[in-house]
Parts: sequence; structure tokens; C-alpha cells
Amino acid sequence: MATTDVLEKDNYFMMLAIDQAKKASSLDEVPVGAVLVCDDQVISEAFNKREALQLAGAHAEVLAIGKANQIKKSWRLVPCTLYVTLEPCSMCAGAILNSRIKRLVFGARDPKAGAVESLYSLLSDSRLNHQVEFVGGVEEEKCSVLLKEFFTQLRQKSR
Amino acid sequence: MATTDVLEKDNYFMMLAIDQAKKASSLDEVPVGAVLVCDDQVISEAFNKREALQLAGAHAEVLAIGKANQIKKSWRLVPCTLYVTLEPCSMCAGAILNSRIKRLVFGARDPKAGAVESLYSLLSDSRLNHQVEFVGGVEEEKCSVLLKEFFTQLRQKSR
Repeated sequence: MATTDVLEKDNYFMMLAIDQAKKASSLDEVPVGAVLVCDDQVISEAFNKREALQLAGAHAEVLAIGKANQIKKSWRLVPCTLYVTLEPCSMCAGAILNSRIKRLVFGARDPKAGAVESLYSLLSDSRLNHQVEFVGGVEEEKCSVLLKEFFTQLRQKSR
Repeated sequence: MATTDVLEKDNYFMMLAIDQAKKASSLDEVPVGAVLVCDDQVISEAFNKREALQLAGAHAEVLAIGKANQIKKSWRLVPCTLYVTLEPCSMCAGAILNSRIKRLVFGARDPKAGAVESLYSLLSDSRLNHQVEFVGGVEEEKCSVLLKEFFTQLRQKSR
């Protein structure tokens, strides 16, 4: 496949992940969305539901992976690509490794907790039994703006 | 509290986690068990169910934390101690951080995937917004033997 096709596809699926993030935002959840794609088909979509579910593990990535595990009836998601609007934390990077996902595409970088590029490089650690290809910064501005607007509104509400 | 009391308590709760690991083993799951304790009361217990649930995230720690989140109706498990028979991987260490657990006690070290002491020190990273006290090697021999026996039997079955 030509590089431009891959880039267009990455942007297309990231826009779907952004749609998920917007749903989170409208429910007062930190706006992070994820979409899991296999053979160019969307298998599952999810957004952060930590507050609604009061579940520490209810990040968008974990929910999208869990749904896909159920749909595929398998913990292995080998040929899939995960799109997520924010660089995964260590929990989510670990879930990506544990589900043997092939490729990750993320939007905004997370200098405070990112475990793919920012604080750790969990997905490219050759000591682990799986590595994951990844691309960061896809539709980065749109993903970042969503997060910034959310936290600005949160600060205004709490005044 | 005197140090000996803490040690005795740690061994007591670790034995409960080992009971959970034995349940996993009897169901052909990698034998890892976890117990979450708050104010000396067991809040939740769980064992690895990756194969039974075909869920990449169904490690003992994640399941015990999820159950406790439901029982406490909160994603925050601030005053709790998690006991687990094997050093947590990056996904589980991340889930421990995300649930704000105070203390972790683990049994066997995991040189291939351990993210607390072996490959990473996620729980003591001052760049993250939470740190977790931890003790490793509690009832280490019993925890290790369970795992070794399981994998020996698995190899014999697959011959």
C-alpha cells in the first residue's frame, strides 16, 4: 500500500476516535477516544468512562480492546490497529502488548503519563515478548484542543 | 504497628492470594492470584482468567481492582493494599497506579515482564502523579513453585 494511502487511512480512523473523545467530553469525562480496526473494518469503538463507571481501568483503549476481545472471542488481536486520541499510559500500553495488537496510532502526546514515547517506550522494548509498531501525532492538534478545552472548562466550573 | 505484625499480616494475605492462584491452576489458567485489602478486611479476590474469558486484560490484579471499584463504588482505592502472587506487568502496575492503591505486596519476581522491580520501576516513578509503596518476595518460594509446576505440566501435555 502506498504511504499516502496509509496516512489518509490513519487520519480517517483517527477522526472516528476523535468523535468518540467528543462523546466523552459531553459526559464530563476526560475526552479520550479509541477505535480498533482490523482489515480496514472498525471492530470496536470506545471512550473514557472512568467517572461514569467509577472504574480505574475504564480508559478508552482498555474498553475498546475488551469489546474487541468479546467480538472476536479471543484475547489475541494480532492483525489489528488501535487508534487513540492520546498517547497511552502504562496500563493501556500494557493492555495493547497483552492483546498482541500489531500497530498503534495515537494523536496527542502525553508528557505527564505517556508510556509509548514520552516517559517510557513500552511498545518497543525488545525484552518483552511482543512489540508494537506505532505512529504518534496523527491529528495531534485536534486531539490536543479537545483536551485543553475540557480542562479549561473544568477549571472555570470549579471556581 | 510493629514490623513483625506487618510481616505476619503480609504473609497471611499472601496465602489467600496463593489460594486464588491455585484456583487458576485447576482451571488451566496461569496461576496468579490477587487479594485486595482495606483496613485489614478483604475487599475482593480474583485469579487470572485470560483463557476462560478470552480477555487480554483479565489478569488477577485487574479483576481484583475492578471488583473493588464496584464494591466501593469508586475508582479510587486509596487506603488499600493489593497482594498478588507474581510481580505485576506494565498493564497491572498501571492499573494499580490509576486506582491510587497505597501499597503493593507481591510474591515471585518476574524477570521477563515485571514492571515494579525487574524491567521497570513504574510504582516509584516520581514523574507520575502517584507512587505506591511495595514489598516483593513475600512467600516467594510458594508462588514460584506454583508457576513452575504449571508450566512443567503444560510442556508435558503439549508433547
